[in-house]
Amino acid sequence: MPRYRIDVEYDGSPYAGWQRQAGQHTVQEAIENAIEGFCGERITLNGAGRTDAGVHALGQVAHFDLSRLWKGATVRDALNAHLTMADEAVAVLEAAVVDNSFDSRFSAKGRQYLYRIMNRRVPAPLERDRTWHVKYHLDEHAMHEAAQRLVGHHDFTTFRAAQCQSKSPVKTLDGLSVTREGDEVHVRAWARSFLHNQVRSLVGTLKRVGEGAWSADDVTAALEARDRAACGPVAPAHGLYLVKVDY
Amino acid sequence: MPRYRIDVEYDGSPYAGWQRQAGQHTVQEAIENAIEGFCGERITLNGAGRTDAGVHALGQVAHFDLSRLWKGATVRDALNAHLTMADEAVAVLEAAVVDNSFDSRFSAKGRQYLYRIMNRRVPAPLERDRTWHVKYHLDEHAMHEAAQRLVGHHDFTTFRAAQCQSKSPVKTLDGLSVTREGDEVHVRAWARSFLHNQVRSLVGTLKRVGEGAWSADDVTAALEARDRAACGPVAPAHGLYLVKVDY
Repeated sequence: MPRYRIDVEYDGSPYAGWQRQAGQHTVQEAIENAIEGFCGERITLNGAGRTDAGVHALGQVAHFDLSRLWKGATVRDALNAHLTMADEAVAVLEAAVVDNSFDSRFSAKGRQYLYRIMNRRVPAPLERDRTWHVKYHLDEHAMHEAAQRLVGHHDFTTFRAAQCQSKSPVKTLDGLSVTREGDEVHVRAWARSFLHNQVRSLVGTLKRVGEGAWSADDVTAALEARDRAACGPVAPAHGLYLVKVDY
Repeated sequence: MPRYRIDVEYDGSPYAGWQRQAGQHTVQEAIENAIEGFCGERITLNGAGRTDAGVHALGQVAHFDLSRLWKGATVRDALNAHLTMADEAVAVLEAAVVDNSFDSRFSAKGRQYLYRIMNRRVPAPLERDRTWHVKYHLDEHAMHEAAQRLVGHHDFTTFRAAQCQSKSPVKTLDGLSVTREGDEVHVRAWARSFLHNQVRSLVGTLKRVGEGAWSADDVTAALEARDRAACGPVAPAHGLYLVKVDY
């Protein structure tokens, strides 16, 4: 059976996250419905990462098998037509036939996330489901400096959700940068893989640095504590974007 | 009584437009409620322009009178607190005490609108209530050239909604530009004042040029017809932004 890879963009706001759950509307289900609408096959879609409720994607990747061989462009356009008809906030950016050894989750060599903080005094209505509104000025230079304490091979227990299913809390964080783009502060994180809530936990902690409550040394101490209680408040889901997955 | 000017940003998606209407949720009502929440006074808010349902604003301007004198920053922060509590997609960017001769509508010397077209093959879920999705490539240069036929002092009957309440269809369009910003085509229009649906009508007509269905001469013919039936399809509300009002 031919295997297909799709690259997907979505607005996470109306969804209970990526993964199919009984009685909830999820991104996975929306795409599975579109695939069934297109070719009549009810398949299980495998995603590179399970984004939480409210988290967006600019480049989620998923794979699935169909009994028939179609052109990538046909699959892309047909899925988009069905997604649009169903009024879903999901689009297929690319679709391609790939080798059967391709696995969107296990073949991934890297994942990149972006976290957008709207850092201005007044709220930004047009970006309210897209950014975390932080009223008081954040020092993005201090945040970036402190972020470098977190880069590398560490036990990230402090920055891991209680419900995280990863076997080990030890991960290599390849990069963590903080920049300002006008009124926004952008945190970018890249690694082969992440723990559950890791990026939002890192951002919540860096925000404490940005507002002057914590120093870079406090961040090091939090990391070394290997204790969830040492983490800053977890940043809300609606500022987070899965940007891309590398293979 | 002191008069206040406020500059307002809003996401038009959840509103039945700017103007108060019985049984509908509008931007005007949202702000009037916030003012009452702040100081207990039920006032009538006067806006520079009445945006339709779904139309956004980056810089709408309004004025109102209160019995007490407050600092601008106090009014701004208090209104934003009440708007946030009420979960409104509206923010007050600036508030200032102004002379009693200031009238947000009649003192205005110019208004600028932006229309955003998302011009890529696949839909853009994160911008779906913010842009008009046009799948096929638009020639923005041809659109810009044709747009120049519409600039100046003309009878804009062709580009005016049936329900337009303006006394005369004759207006001076000071500028109309079309540019490409990545996947987006931006149409900017500026003038002292506009007819009802004028910008959306102009954009709908320019889109016909961009897709190659109409020439610049067809646009001139449509203008000279002074006939609503000669207009291209009116562009949808959700791509339109009131950018600013000059005084």
